[in-house]
Amino acid sequence: MLHAVIMAGGSGTRFWPASRRDRPKQLLELISTAPLLRLTFERLETLVPPERVWVITTQTTAAACGRVLPEVPGRNILAEPVGRNTAACVGLAAHAIGAEDSDAVCLVLPADHLIGDEDQFRSAMEAGANLVSNEGGLLTFGIQPTRPETGYGYLELGENHARSGQWTIHHLRAFVEKPDAERAEEYVSSGRHLWNAGIFAWRVRDLLAEMGRQLPDLAAGLERIGDARSSADATGILAEVYPTLPATSVDHGIMEGARKRWVLPVDFPWSDVGSWPALADELPTDDEGNASRGRIAALDSSHNVLVSTGPVLAVVGIEDLVVVATPDAVLVVPKDLAQRVKDVVDRLRDLGWEDVL
Amino acid sequence: MLHAVIMAGGSGTRFWPASRRDRPKQLLELISTAPLLRLTFERLETLVPPERVWVITTQTTAAACGRVLPEVPGRNILAEPVGRNTAACVGLAAHAIGAEDSDAVCLVLPADHLIGDEDQFRSAMEAGANLVSNEGGLLTFGIQPTRPETGYGYLELGENHARSGQWTIHHLRAFVEKPDAERAEEYVSSGRHLWNAGIFAWRVRDLLAEMGRQLPDLAAGLERIGDARSSADATGILAEVYPTLPATSVDHGIMEGARKRWVLPVDFPWSDVGSWPALADELPTDDEGNASRGRIAALDSSHNVLVSTGPVLAVVGIEDLVVVATPDAVLVVPKDLAQRVKDVVDRLRDLGWEDVL
Repeated sequence: MLHAVIMAGGSGTRFWPASRRDRPKQLLELISTAPLLRLTFERLETLVPPERVWVITTQTTAAACGRVLPEVPGRNILAEPVGRNTAACVGLAAHAIGAEDSDAVCLVLPADHLIGDEDQFRSAMEAGANLVSNEGGLLTFGIQPTRPETGYGYLELGENHARSGQWTIHHLRAFVEKPDAERAEEYVSSGRHLWNAGIFAWRVRDLLAEMGRQLPDLAAGLERIGDARSSADATGILAEVYPTLPATSVDHGIMEGARKRWVLPVDFPWSDVGSWPALADELPTDDEGNASRGRIAALDSSHNVLVSTGPVLAVVGIEDLVVVATPDAVLVVPKDLAQRVKDVVDRLRDLGWEDVL
Repeated sequence: MLHAVIMAGGSGTRFWPASRRDRPKQLLELISTAPLLRLTFERLETLVPPERVWVITTQTTAAACGRVLPEVPGRNILAEPVGRNTAACVGLAAHAIGAEDSDAVCLVLPADHLIGDEDQFRSAMEAGANLVSNEGGLLTFGIQPTRPETGYGYLELGENHARSGQWTIHHLRAFVEKPDAERAEEYVSSGRHLWNAGIFAWRVRDLLAEMGRQLPDLAAGLERIGDARSSADATGILAEVYPTLPATSVDHGIMEGARKRWVLPVDFPWSDVGSWPALADELPTDDEGNASRGRIAALDSSHNVLVSTGPVLAVVGIEDLVVVATPDAVLVVPKDLAQRVKDVVDRLRDLGWEDVL
């Protein structure tokens, strides 16, 4: 049967001060009135019933995830004791699911992306799941690039393998690191490169087989955790073993060396909403190009990103700034320096202002 | 006996969002840990005992003024039903004081100024009060200008009249309107022009005599209010008559036409703290010229005014901005547009966001 694994472990300092340790990006109501995690769940609704949706998150946020997804059984919300990158995360989910459903097929999705066309999205997910269900292998979904983005990794298409409705599934030739600007231009015009969005489909047993072959230490550790699942000491074993697991990504640790791997190109609007300026594309914009959310008064100001989670935010005569207001913390930074919010978080930690982290 | 009248009726939109209708500038703890009104009161402490300190304020803020000045008897805090400019304000005070002390001499001071040298201040106030006590007339204190400020009115010195310790009292030749830049330069270099700080000394009976001669309607209205002071309907008469009084300033309505008027030049550091950038001069400044108050983290930022009344305020890569953070409202404006905060307040009123006004 088809399951969905939502990876909801991100810490999301890039959206400080809206995001905090106990309220990371996937739990924020930034774009619509619902958190991104909720949107991700609802997007799957006609495809996977709630009892087959699994959420992998942190201990800090597991309870909040449960509140956001009351339809999902509590036992489907798995809390990592510490983050050990995505390979361990999908492995933990695979064991939990496989214990109940040895024929399980999984869609694996980040909790914090935006998808513009949900029908197209579901149609593509279904096509990908069907392929791996019938033929095995590990499949990743690749997004048609719309700009020469240097902040993403790319997927290089191999030969056509099959068609499924409007979708064509290809062999996956290679994972490509984040390119420089020139190479990114080449990738966009090549028609052979796609953005790596970190959305996957596979049978649980195929994933675990690849993991056993390529990452035997990880596989062994996860096995130990899995064997203890029903024991009285399940939590203790998890807390003991999980932090010792090799920390590697699905892409690098599993997909790159997988024997049978596919890519399904999609072209629905997609965003990983990776920064405050990226969020601007998703917000309403006024005549002066100010993207805003909340109670905003902008006078003689243009091309700003103005976000408030509560306070009235008033600006006069400013340009190209990100201003984010929350009741207990405020950020002001030029759009082109928005990635430095990480430095802000570091500084606040140095200052000992833990209450706003 | 010597009394002090503290004029505390300002609405202070220039310090939005720190100031609000019910928390105007004189009640803010912006500079030190005490409100400006409290500093004004403490500055007078060895000169005038609390029972001879009078506060003229608005109905919205009378209770708050009382909390800030618990030593001042409640009956000395007079609430104007509406603001009718300073002539009515000082007249209301004069009647209240004169009813108890027919020989009263008054110092009249705005509640929201900063004075750099309190000993000098008290010495000058005493000299001014002594002169009017002995010779009558209306006296104003003039501040030695330190820059060609175009935002203030000026006082032109007349002939020397008397010395009192280190102080020289002059006849007051003229009130001069706010000058243009060129004329302001002339005034500063002339040595004959002083800033008009709106600080006065007079005997109550001399003020009321000038008021009766120059502003008979105002005098008559205030008389009616004064006559009703001890009656059961005192509040009703005040509420009925006060709004009908002519609204004019002490300078324009009384001082300009006064038969006997003096000016006492002083050179202690003085500021009316008229705007966010002006406040910067009173705040601690870091190596990059950022003036700040509150929990501020400034990265690669210079020459900003960064004020928070609670929230952590973090800025990266900004220059010459005013950023003010409060739990329910935030302002961002370049320093050289700081006077436009009034437009912000108008806009918020238009938007119906009364909760932050």
